[in-house]
Amino acid sequence: MSVQAPSPKAAPSGSGISRAIDAVFNPRSIAVLGVTRSPGTVPYDIFHNILTTSYTGVLYPVAPGKRSIDSVRAYRYLTDIEDDVDLAVIVFPANVCERALEHCAKKGVKAVIIISAGFREVGPEGLRREQRIKDICDANGIAMIGPNCLGVINTDPAMSLNASFARKMPAQGRIAFLSQSGALCTAVLDYALGKGIGFSKFVSFGNKAGLTEMDLLEYLRGDDQTDMILLYLEELRNGRKLIEVAQRITRGPGAKPILAIKSGRTPQGASAAASHTGSLAGEDAICEAVFREAGIIRVTSIEELFNSAIMLTYQPLPKGDSLAIVTNAGGPGVMATDAAVGSGLTIAPFAPETTAKLSAALPAAANIKNPVDVIGDARSDRYIAAMEAVLADAAVDQMLVILTPQSMTDIEGIARGVCEVHAHATKPIACSFMGACDVVGGIDILQAANIPHYILPEWACRAMADVQRVIKWRSQPAEEPQQTPADQAAAAAIIDPAPAGYLREDQALAVLKAYEFPVPAYKLCRSADEAVEFADSIGYPVVLRIVSPQIVHKFDVKGVALNLESAQAVRDAHRDMMNSVHAAVPDATIEGVIARQMVPAGHEIILGAKQDAVFGPTLMFGLGGLFVETFKDVTFALAPIGPASAMRMVKDVKAHSLLEGARGTEPADIEAICQCLLRLSRLVTDFPRIAELDINPLLVWPAGQGGAVADVRIKINGETQPK
Amino acid sequence: MSVQAPSPKAAPSGSGISRAIDAVFNPRSIAVLGVTRSPGTVPYDIFHNILTTSYTGVLYPVAPGKRSIDSVRAYRYLTDIEDDVDLAVIVFPANVCERALEHCAKKGVKAVIIISAGFREVGPEGLRREQRIKDICDANGIAMIGPNCLGVINTDPAMSLNASFARKMPAQGRIAFLSQSGALCTAVLDYALGKGIGFSKFVSFGNKAGLTEMDLLEYLRGDDQTDMILLYLEELRNGRKLIEVAQRITRGPGAKPILAIKSGRTPQGASAAASHTGSLAGEDAICEAVFREAGIIRVTSIEELFNSAIMLTYQPLPKGDSLAIVTNAGGPGVMATDAAVGSGLTIAPFAPETTAKLSAALPAAANIKNPVDVIGDARSDRYIAAMEAVLADAAVDQMLVILTPQSMTDIEGIARGVCEVHAHATKPIACSFMGACDVVGGIDILQAANIPHYILPEWACRAMADVQRVIKWRSQPAEEPQQTPADQAAAAAIIDPAPAGYLREDQALAVLKAYEFPVPAYKLCRSADEAVEFADSIGYPVVLRIVSPQIVHKFDVKGVALNLESAQAVRDAHRDMMNSVHAAVPDATIEGVIARQMVPAGHEIILGAKQDAVFGPTLMFGLGGLFVETFKDVTFALAPIGPASAMRMVKDVKAHSLLEGARGTEPADIEAICQCLLRLSRLVTDFPRIAELDINPLLVWPAGQGGAVADVRIKINGETQPK
Repeated sequence: MSVQAPSPKAAPSGSGISRAIDAVFNPRSIAVLGVTRSPGTVPYDIFHNILTTSYTGVLYPVAPGKRSIDSVRAYRYLTDIEDDVDLAVIVFPANVCERALEHCAKKGVKAVIIISAGFREVGPEGLRREQRIKDICDANGIAMIGPNCLGVINTDPAMSLNASFARKMPAQGRIAFLSQSGALCTAVLDYALGKGIGFSKFVSFGNKAGLTEMDLLEYLRGDDQTDMILLYLEELRNGRKLIEVAQRITRGPGAKPILAIKSGRTPQGASAAASHTGSLAGEDAICEAVFREAGIIRVTSIEELFNSAIMLTYQPLPKGDSLAIVTNAGGPGVMATDAAVGSGLTIAPFAPETTAKLSAALPAAANIKNPVDVIGDARSDRYIAAMEAVLADAAVDQMLVILTPQSMTDIEGIARGVCEVHAHATKPIACSFMGACDVVGGIDILQAANIPHYILPEWACRAMADVQRVIKWRSQPAEEPQQTPADQAAAAAIIDPAPAGYLREDQALAVLKAYEFPVPAYKLCRSADEAVEFADSIGYPVVLRIVSPQIVHKFDVKGVALNLESAQAVRDAHRDMMNSVHAAVPDATIEGVIARQMVPAGHEIILGAKQDAVFGPTLMFGLGGLFVETFKDVTFALAPIGPASAMRMVKDVKAHSLLEGARGTEPADIEAICQCLLRLSRLVTDFPRIAELDINPLLVWPAGQGGAVADVRIKINGETQPK
Repeated sequence: MSVQAPSPKAAPSGSGISRAIDAVFNPRSIAVLGVTRSPGTVPYDIFHNILTTSYTGVLYPVAPGKRSIDSVRAYRYLTDIEDDVDLAVIVFPANVCERALEHCAKKGVKAVIIISAGFREVGPEGLRREQRIKDICDANGIAMIGPNCLGVINTDPAMSLNASFARKMPAQGRIAFLSQSGALCTAVLDYALGKGIGFSKFVSFGNKAGLTEMDLLEYLRGDDQTDMILLYLEELRNGRKLIEVAQRITRGPGAKPILAIKSGRTPQGASAAASHTGSLAGEDAICEAVFREAGIIRVTSIEELFNSAIMLTYQPLPKGDSLAIVTNAGGPGVMATDAAVGSGLTIAPFAPETTAKLSAALPAAANIKNPVDVIGDARSDRYIAAMEAVLADAAVDQMLVILTPQSMTDIEGIARGVCEVHAHATKPIACSFMGACDVVGGIDILQAANIPHYILPEWACRAMADVQRVIKWRSQPAEEPQQTPADQAAAAAIIDPAPAGYLREDQALAVLKAYEFPVPAYKLCRSADEAVEFADSIGYPVVLRIVSPQIVHKFDVKGVALNLESAQAVRDAHRDMMNSVHAAVPDATIEGVIARQMVPAGHEIILGAKQDAVFGPTLMFGLGGLFVETFKDVTFALAPIGPASAMRMVKDVKAHSLLEGARGTEPADIEAICQCLLRLSRLVTDFPRIAELDINPLLVWPAGQGGAVADVRIKINGETQPK
């Protein structure tokens, strides 16, 4: 077998790489390269982990100069092994990895896990090194995990593989965990062990030079051991791809929820992330948009990640968002109510028969409204009666059971009571036995029965609210990007030959016109006469706007004249404008003025787009002026979008009510805004050279009356299009 | 000794009640009334708790028909006890408590704890019952805790008192805990036990019919066992009093931080609270204002309460808000950076010498910028070097140490390393050893050395941010309410005789004028002639506004005419207005029109005030229109206020930047706004009959140019003032 020369075009086909990924998780044989005999060194620890956690395949240590490691016969070179080797684990120093990979290629290894650090995260030289190993893998169809990672775990008893230097093998479970940070995995494993949470697959993918989160997500989509996926990301490199892959997983029959932490939320965090794994974290608001479109539930902490995961894994999905609370203490009931409502859940109103049942079963001092207070001396019989009554109520979609350890509280008895009710319940149940010592016995009973338990009722509510996000996503129909009509050639004729920088205003307007934006009649006029002639042809009033590459802020130099009612007014305005512009910017090259229809006032909308280095073309929507600047009240989406996404962008700003006719105004033409967003989506998707585009404002009139582009700027990036 | 007849005027003097409160915490003798021999009953459990937790005074069971309880001689009646009894604990059914209290009064008992429920929380009859027992206590100078509570704990070894039915006595500590919910206390005690947190005093004050949170706070101010106070409240009954008491505790020499949870944040939560302890929860935004003025740090969960408490108790206050992070894992470092910045902390930039030290001590792959990553194979020597280096940096105010349990991580060794550094550190340190199993040994070592530990770095950051709130509060100078000049008699002449309902517009303007608000010249005119005469005297342009008790929304019936430039315009407008108003509201009684100076446009400000049933006179500030309605961007304060509070109200709205000259506008006259807030503060404090007052808008001009009241409505409440 010979090593193929690296070639960027030799990337393996989809099915090939998918077979190769399978060798990461289900290898029939593994070689660990460079194993020593010293516990506490990574190669030994990994070898030892595989050996001692009942891996069902064959394990080969490669250890030049050693006859055996832990009684297992050792090999001098990988190529000395007589058997096929599916998976190789490499922990050599970064500069030796390339050689090792060449050996792997020669041996026909299907997959490698590169634990070693010292690649892209250490700067340009590391990045080059990373590219070289990636090229070898690509050229030889080797699936690579890493570099700079902790390794891979597959708890499937048919494999029982811990190819990582984690301290412990987690329990088997139906949750897969993918992490960009290796060290975080060690904390997560320890944390999960404490909570009794099991995993199906556990992957630290590090620098993701070979297999990325997309490949792994795609693999897990078909993994019958996995019901849901948790993801820790420090950067996104391809938002559009993530949306495609995640949508396939999170929607439709056999959908699996994906929960994710994306760190680097703040600019400081993003800069720390960059120095850590060499990530280029994108703007957080755009990440948010990506996750929303992808159907990925973004959470903010490991606590929330697991809290929501156990609710999704262990309990059925509820029908709706209404909650019943059963508690033996009023205070926590009040706090839980606050938390539930604050998280977007509703407090179920009980039917009269429920109230009657509660009234019959509970003492007079109890509260039989929701939250139900069975009061401090309640034992399991009273809890059971209350739980059965509220679960039977059609208005109740899910239940939270709260217990405080009062002196008469039979904690374990009540826990068993919850288990009894849970055994035949069809609605989700969560518990909060509050405390840390006396309640432990009860919590153990609940967890053994897979009833989600949360130390604080607030966390239970938050987890239930995340479940609602999953339900909402699934109920949202999938949509295709919409191709609005456009004269693409006309736009290309302007954009393709344009140099880097801003398009002239008439060109920018022409581009929008080609994409059928509502652009008022306009003309670039070289003289006052020409402007008057044009104004006469379209009718008054008109607007004049100066056109000069040196003048960006036209208003500041009196380069805009509004509401000109007559030919004379146009002439006067033209003269005054030339004078004031010359006075303000003596060196400006004046290319003329844009004469334009004066359009009626309306809601001021801002539509923006930019080519993001990480995410590609992105769209922004906001209400004019104050809302954008003071409240950052804007929404983002990745282009291209469809009609439902456009509507979501409009509806998700806080100031949205203003467009629906708040404060006595007429409702705005929201349909016209959505149409413009769809046109913008197509425009920036068709022309990657559009670096930035701002329509500010788009004036929008009452419903059915449309709107008009009042100002636009389009910035073209450096490389001109090949002819 | 004879029982004094209850009389509302016989409330004990301050020093008397303070001596009586001391009998709650430091009784020389205690009687528990109605003790049985059955474990699991509240009277027995309380008796047993006192007996078995080494109470240093004398304990007397009162148990008719029993010779002894747990070998302690029992008494038939309280009055049979030969000794003085300082404290009585009462657990009788609600309807027997009154009798029991009469016995206490006869015996000269100084303080009582009434555990029993069945009072205000069960409705009007319970409230009456509660009033009767309160009257007996007041008349006899008895300090009462409860009813409807868990009891009281004093861990001072000189007393060692657990007069509660909590399952366990907490450890001694320097934190006092006061709770309106008794059952919550049981959860908190169990939780604290798990975290190794001790308490000085622990009080469940229930319905607070006798001693309220104010009395207890005041007592704890002088308690040398207590360094900080935690408070759980479901309702506030007197916001102004709480501000006074809390300010004395949280400021000045010997200041003690107060952290509080106030539940019933949401309307649904408030309604659950009302059904629970009969609370009337006030508007949450006003609570927020009360806590801010009181210097009470409001937190949102029990987790945050303790997280912040241990930071405040165990660590010195930092000099500023800058944080250094030392971690052995990049991912958690990024997440902590996000959390720190998100909580308002800053990430310290390191001095060159710090970077040099880090560079010398750490391997090449380490990150020597903040967050410092000592990387996965770090042992305690590397951690210690990094910690010493960053703590020595003058730009670092506090440090967070993060550990993930990687295979080579010597968890306990590193914990001991942190302890070494902590032993001579002068800056606050917190740790996050992430996980739940392997890290436990390390966490125990840290907690034993009083180094705050948090499972998640996010929580550490939140706790440190709460510490910043304490520092900010202390740096804020105390201020006296400001008495703005006012002609109180002139206002009284209008308000005192007014019937319930809205003042006529000219009267409302006259009230504002008496308090020296900037009210433009105006007159109530009965005819067009009168209006013209007045307009001639003040000069044009003027405004006419209809005056009719039936017409609230003047604009809707064309009852406002703006910008009238001449006598003829005034006459025309007057005629048109009469016609349109008659057409729109044929039955309206027209009392005339207000003729008024037309004032220039300006920033539109809303100033509001209302008499709140719970908080008394409250003030509101917001920017006109959209900001108030769409974004709820308003601030509240309790009247009376001083200049600093007025400025805070203005600066705390999000849209504040608009007043400072954002978007090319001139800065507004903020001083004029503050002056109006101070005038409003005095006005509503002087006249409790002002139920609601809205100045909407106050037009405010550029700095130095003042502003003008453009519209005002004042609603007077039902009871007319006694002459």
